[in-house]
Amino acid sequence: MMDYKLLEALSAVLHHQGFERAARHLGLTQSAVSQRIKLLEARLGQPVLVRGNTPEATDLGRRLLNHVQQVQLLEEELTLSLPQLAGTERHLRVAINADSISTWWPQAMGEFMRDHPMTLDLVIEDQDVGLQRMRHGEVAACLCASAQPVQGTRVVPLGRMRYRALAQPDFLHRYLPQGPSPEDLARTPAIIFDHNDQLQHRCLAEFGITGPFPHHICASTEGFIQLVMAGIGWGMMPELQVADLLDSGELIDLVPGYHLDVPLYWHYWRLGGESLDALAHHLEKAANQVLVPF
Amino acid sequence: MMDYKLLEALSAVLHHQGFERAARHLGLTQSAVSQRIKLLEARLGQPVLVRGNTPEATDLGRRLLNHVQQVQLLEEELTLSLPQLAGTERHLRVAINADSISTWWPQAMGEFMRDHPMTLDLVIEDQDVGLQRMRHGEVAACLCASAQPVQGTRVVPLGRMRYRALAQPDFLHRYLPQGPSPEDLARTPAIIFDHNDQLQHRCLAEFGITGPFPHHICASTEGFIQLVMAGIGWGMMPELQVADLLDSGELIDLVPGYHLDVPLYWHYWRLGGESLDALAHHLEKAANQVLVPF
Repeated sequence: MMDYKLLEALSAVLHHQGFERAARHLGLTQSAVSQRIKLLEARLGQPVLVRGNTPEATDLGRRLLNHVQQVQLLEEELTLSLPQLAGTERHLRVAINADSISTWWPQAMGEFMRDHPMTLDLVIEDQDVGLQRMRHGEVAACLCASAQPVQGTRVVPLGRMRYRALAQPDFLHRYLPQGPSPEDLARTPAIIFDHNDQLQHRCLAEFGITGPFPHHICASTEGFIQLVMAGIGWGMMPELQVADLLDSGELIDLVPGYHLDVPLYWHYWRLGGESLDALAHHLEKAANQVLVPF
Repeated sequence: MMDYKLLEALSAVLHHQGFERAARHLGLTQSAVSQRIKLLEARLGQPVLVRGNTPEATDLGRRLLNHVQQVQLLEEELTLSLPQLAGTERHLRVAINADSISTWWPQAMGEFMRDHPMTLDLVIEDQDVGLQRMRHGEVAACLCASAQPVQGTRVVPLGRMRYRALAQPDFLHRYLPQGPSPEDLARTPAIIFDHNDQLQHRCLAEFGITGPFPHHICASTEGFIQLVMAGIGWGMMPELQVADLLDSGELIDLVPGYHLDVPLYWHYWRLGGESLDALAHHLEKAANQVLVPF
């Protein structure tokens, strides 16, 4: 068997992004943590960490991290049926897209966690980066728009999130007094989340606008809504997130009747144990209540 | 005079994070943009970009970017008094902390932009990174908790944002049925924004808890609120952002009467022209309405 004391130190240094914080978390001195990492490297004959302001895993380090996280999941699985083993805490690292964490996912997760206590470490990422983190074993699950499975994982289709092109009424009146003609639409400032966000481009393309258009950039979902509410631009927003603002008329459609559906999939480690299976099943059911079915 | 066609190409490649996108924005071919960057480097005898998936500025590139952004601000300043010069669009890049973009700042900015049209590029960053971006000339303004001025900038104190330790009532009942004793508080799961977020630690330290405590990690302000609302943990939240949830009783205080105030400052380039001065003055007034005064 491998020496899990050493692997636990590695996992803690990477998870807590530093030797000092890892030591505090493990209840050890910083030098003890450092010794364990050095011993691990001496045994393997290769470095597991790149030391810097924030320590990062080498390729070897990542593979060990992947392994120790899977072992931790299996251990915690065992603890569920043998509560006397409790003491080690269950920990789940998930890559998730910004719009899911801002809408239905926390509620669904909260229900599951009543019977499956654990701590969550959520990494807010776009799909490509999220899946890459799965491939590297940095996260145990990923919620994203890609159906493409990563080796060693299962993929569960959840449903589609509906986006509408929305703006504040005064803003629309100011920029599109004659309604949404392509000429005026192309001059109306949009908000985009970041340079990877193509939702506004796809909406405009539907109306024949494929060139550049004025836009603001804001990679915060709540900031995005606030900028739209302040009459700074229009943007594609999940219906789920702004239901109240649509009901009250504080947000209205740029182009009535238009919407765009983005599919969502749950990826998770196949060897993560029964409770990752149970979680997938639970999320599938919860998503069914709130997302547009496939 | 320098050749601003070349500098504009550099600025576009960095701003749009790629040659193709920069070309689309400038209405040029990708090869024309590439030629301009090469010519710039040939004249200077040094690279201005590190080519990679996403091009990054070299030190020299950053200094040029800083310069061209200041020139752009001054030009747009001039355009305000000489509207016949219009055509170049005013562009403002700002580093801002997540809680400000999610609360009062967009409304204040929307009011200012009625008379000062511009496009915004918002970089959501913690204070240290935000100020470092100012130092490198990557952003023209920064809203953060540090009063420490960067060379060549002005600093305007805005006020303090009040945070309260909040949770969902069922959650509190489950974890703290006897009230907030230090023993029970130390066992109650918290949500933290990221590894730099010390607000929850500072709150617990007030009650004598300085060791590790169970916590989830979620670097999304909206996700943070949703996790608390789902009964997954407690967290420090800006009063401003959750006023409705406090009124309706959907969120309640972990420790009644406890709060923590975080100061906020607006940093901006001294040579950014009159309209950056006017913006600072406007934000100072707007902040006065919503933040706790110094």
